Amino acid sequence: MLTDIQIAQNCKLLKINKIAEKLGINEEDLELYGNYKAKLSDKLWDKVKAKKDGKLILVTAINPTPAGEGKTTTTVGLGQAMDKIGKNAVIALREPSLGPVMGIKGGAAGGGYSQVVPMEDINLHFTGDMHAITAANNLLSAAIDNHLQQGNSLNIDPRQIVWKRCMDMNDRALRNIIVGLGGKVNGVPREDGFNITVASEVMAILCLASDITDLKERLGKIIIGYNYSGNPVTARDLKVDGAMTLLLKDAIKPNLVQTLEGTPAIMHGGPFANIAHGCNSVTATKIALKLSDYVITEAGFGADLGAEKFFDIKCRFAGFKPDAVVLVATIRALKYNGGVKKENLKEENIEALSKGFSNAQKHIENIKQFGVPVIVAINHFDTDTEKEIQLVHDKCSALGVEVAFSDVFLKGGEGGIELANKLVDLLDSTTSNFAPLYDSDAPIKDKVHTIVSKIYGGKNVIYTAAAEKSISKIEEMGLDKLPICMAKTQYSLSDNAALLGCPKDFDVTVKEVRISAGAGFIVVLTGDIMTMPGLPKVPAAEKIDIQEDGTIVGLF
Amino acid sequence: MLTDIQIAQNCKLLKINKIAEKLGINEEDLELYGNYKAKLSDKLWDKVKAKKDGKLILVTAINPTPAGEGKTTTTVGLGQAMDKIGKNAVIALREPSLGPVMGIKGGAAGGGYSQVVPMEDINLHFTGDMHAITAANNLLSAAIDNHLQQGNSLNIDPRQIVWKRCMDMNDRALRNIIVGLGGKVNGVPREDGFNITVASEVMAILCLASDITDLKERLGKIIIGYNYSGNPVTARDLKVDGAMTLLLKDAIKPNLVQTLEGTPAIMHGGPFANIAHGCNSVTATKIALKLSDYVITEAGFGADLGAEKFFDIKCRFAGFKPDAVVLVATIRALKYNGGVKKENLKEENIEALSKGFSNAQKHIENIKQFGVPVIVAINHFDTDTEKEIQLVHDKCSALGVEVAFSDVFLKGGEGGIELANKLVDLLDSTTSNFAPLYDSDAPIKDKVHTIVSKIYGGKNVIYTAAAEKSISKIEEMGLDKLPICMAKTQYSLSDNAALLGCPKDFDVTVKEVRISAGAGFIVVLTGDIMTMPGLPKVPAAEKIDIQEDGTIVGLF
Repeated sequence: MLTDIQIAQNCKLLKINKIAEKLGINEEDLELYGNYKAKLSDKLWDKVKAKKDGKLILVTAINPTPAGEGKTTTTVGLGQAMDKIGKNAVIALREPSLGPVMGIKGGAAGGGYSQVVPMEDINLHFTGDMHAITAANNLLSAAIDNHLQQGNSLNIDPRQIVWKRCMDMNDRALRNIIVGLGGKVNGVPREDGFNITVASEVMAILCLASDITDLKERLGKIIIGYNYSGNPVTARDLKVDGAMTLLLKDAIKPNLVQTLEGTPAIMHGGPFANIAHGCNSVTATKIALKLSDYVITEAGFGADLGAEKFFDIKCRFAGFKPDAVVLVATIRALKYNGGVKKENLKEENIEALSKGFSNAQKHIENIKQFGVPVIVAINHFDTDTEKEIQLVHDKCSALGVEVAFSDVFLKGGEGGIELANKLVDLLDSTTSNFAPLYDSDAPIKDKVHTIVSKIYGGKNVIYTAAAEKSISKIEEMGLDKLPICMAKTQYSLSDNAALLGCPKDFDVTVKEVRISAGAGFIVVLTGDIMTMPGLPKVPAAEKIDIQEDGTIVGLF
Repeated sequence: MLTDIQIAQNCKLLKINKIAEKLGINEEDLELYGNYKAKLSDKLWDKVKAKKDGKLILVTAINPTPAGEGKTTTTVGLGQAMDKIGKNAVIALREPSLGPVMGIKGGAAGGGYSQVVPMEDINLHFTGDMHAITAANNLLSAAIDNHLQQGNSLNIDPRQIVWKRCMDMNDRALRNIIVGLGGKVNGVPREDGFNITVASEVMAILCLASDITDLKERLGKIIIGYNYSGNPVTARDLKVDGAMTLLLKDAIKPNLVQTLEGTPAIMHGGPFANIAHGCNSVTATKIALKLSDYVITEAGFGADLGAEKFFDIKCRFAGFKPDAVVLVATIRALKYNGGVKKENLKEENIEALSKGFSNAQKHIENIKQFGVPVIVAINHFDTDTEKEIQLVHDKCSALGVEVAFSDVFLKGGEGGIELANKLVDLLDSTTSNFAPLYDSDAPIKDKVHTIVSKIYGGKNVIYTAAAEKSISKIEEMGLDKLPICMAKTQYSLSDNAALLGCPKDFDVTVKEVRISAGAGFIVVLTGDIMTMPGLPKVPAAEKIDIQEDGTIVGLF
């Protein structure tokens, strides 16, 4: 079989204005970036805002395993399948980060015959959104250090600066650094560090802002640290909120691209799914709903993190009412959740599958708690046996949930027709009664307990002394009435990556609580969260190349 | 009078495909970035390479003064004036760096009625070239630190790493840093620092590479530091030259924009004029020569640095034969060179003007040493008196050089018609006998002495012990047969910024010598060169803003 990049390179792309036409967008409302990428102009919103919203479908997954689930591939394939059955659909995805492309990950725009293209550009600089976020983030850092250097009239305590610099690169040596060395003319020495750009609060803000005015408002609220009296200092205090907004004036506009089969795809924003909410931008989803009958979007990690935050943060802020959820799983991954080792996943194992299905079952129940109809999509592998397939059918039936097997990696949209048809049936036959899980005005600990008990299935929440102190500080600042952004291992419903399936009777320990005042949520950390990845022993960058004739290799 | 940004915002821009038409470029050879910016496709070169080259005109200046000379404004205005007199011209400029825009400088795309537009975009992210250079530079840094972390099989000596990270920001706190802190999993601690992106060798390489193959070759040759045996370690040794090239695949394509009067402008690359050569890219100039009868380009700082390096580095590498030079001066700046203080420049002062003209005279003589015809352009100010104007005419006549007064800041192309006509006359009546000043195969010290004695007018060159050691090392590596890139104060012909006019009998001290093996030149430093600027007490960023309706303010 061909590699992803070979498949992508063999694809004859449509010019992006032709893709825009499918969504009823005139060329005058496109800002072209070459022939195959465009930003949607600000004026487009005014033209379409009176239209009725399409249906909003979230694609999420069971807890991720080394076996792979294919959530993005399923999302793209489902979009293509909707086209095949004559439905007008658009895909709304996150855009990939360059850092991991150079590290271990390769591309991040689907796979096989269900990819978003031009994959090379999307995986490199795309339309420059990440670089704009990096620049805005680092302008704020430069302003902080310049303020210290020029007399520090705001009395910022250099030991209490929480804002970090950022870079879209996997670079562990930048995690913990000392800046400002070299004597008086070269700044005030202090500890600092870099996050990867997608982990910057600026990224979360860009994704949650409803428009440029809201963007500036949120950027201004960023707390960069505290003064010697312990009071917060913001980006607005440093007077760079306007310049940061200007740096993001194009980045806030959604990007239009296409799938291998010419289905329109809006790729925009890509916040980390742990210290941020892990969904594409509000502006992208908002306009997608006006442009199409069906908007298919996804959220990071499994449904315990991705779907919960999609519902409780993004939908809450933006007022979205999701109409259905597609829960992606594979029989291999379910068996892994049932205790089978990675090397034995090819063998039939009914008992393990039955046990591991508990993970899918919990996620199904969780989605129902939000009042949203759900369908299960099994990303089919050759090694799936008849008996295993039947078991999944039976299990889903027992829960009153439809299941569809799909094969979009190998067959593109054709492989997702069953899923597309069943999804449309579900949307036609049910009504979503979506509501967020908790009241954001509730006390912080109540909100966290609700998520832990209802979504994770845990018992108690234990707080470290540091976490208790942070909660008090947030309450003192009057910032406690915000939604919770949980940071937890993605591999388990619990905070212990080793507990697969559907663990019970566990406690969750909160190690740290941070405020993202600009993004508008409280980050609750249940473990050590890595916000700057490293490169592996042999980085993907060593294989990545461009040949004399322009052929790109190594972006698999 | 309106501010630069107000003038730019009042301008009704032509769509960029209309500008391309003026150069005979079809839309299929453009890669659009919105309506008013485009990159020129790789395929365009094959279509035009057989054409005869147009005339190449360099705009340079006397040594810069606080009075301002208006070199870029004159370049843009001259391009517009060529249009007015019915000549087919294109301007080839450097693209601005974002860092200084947020610092003290504001925009860098001409001024008044001689600007390149869309100035907001050009001064912000433009087409992403700077960000791509930043990413390529920092991928190499990440690879270095990852190599140290993963066992250091190349035996790189962390104390001898010369490659720095970079960022397109004025951020003094990043000049001297320590990276890799935090224990075993977070890297190997070492001293490092950031340059501003335009000071990165990657920028110099991008500007000197003739095509993507040459680009990869040069990137591979970058010396990142030395191993414990003292031998150089290159980017190719770290196997990231391919990935770095891929990151630059679009950045190497020249950008097409326009002036306020619709003259085509190719803006591409912008290396520092001290530790690099300070001219726009070879790829841009090369294609501009095929697209137009007259190509008007400029180089950084005064003619002692900018023109010398344009001739001896850029033209030498690319095989360009410049046809004429425009030397820009103002009567104010000449008086400043004659000893008048900044606050008294409005007053007539024939004596000081006569004395200060010596600076212009030396530059005129220097340009003639390269065999290139020269014309003087006086950027006219209201305060210039009849007598002063007459004196400049007389002085130029005595040297056998034409002089034209221009007023392109206030009048646009109309204000440059005299200059344009006289330039065309010069080109029609003379032939350039261009040759570089020195043989690049000569010993390093001979080459430096030639520049110091012939161009600067100095006597001896003194080397510090460190410089002597570096020269020996470069000779030992067999890299001494490369052109020299002088790093010197721009304010004087000497290495002492206080010596105005035409100093004589001075010595020049070389403090340090560095090798830029990828760019292909030897950097000779005669003073402390700042490669990462800082922000001022009140940064321009504090005034920069975007309003709710999208209006941009503060980019003056």
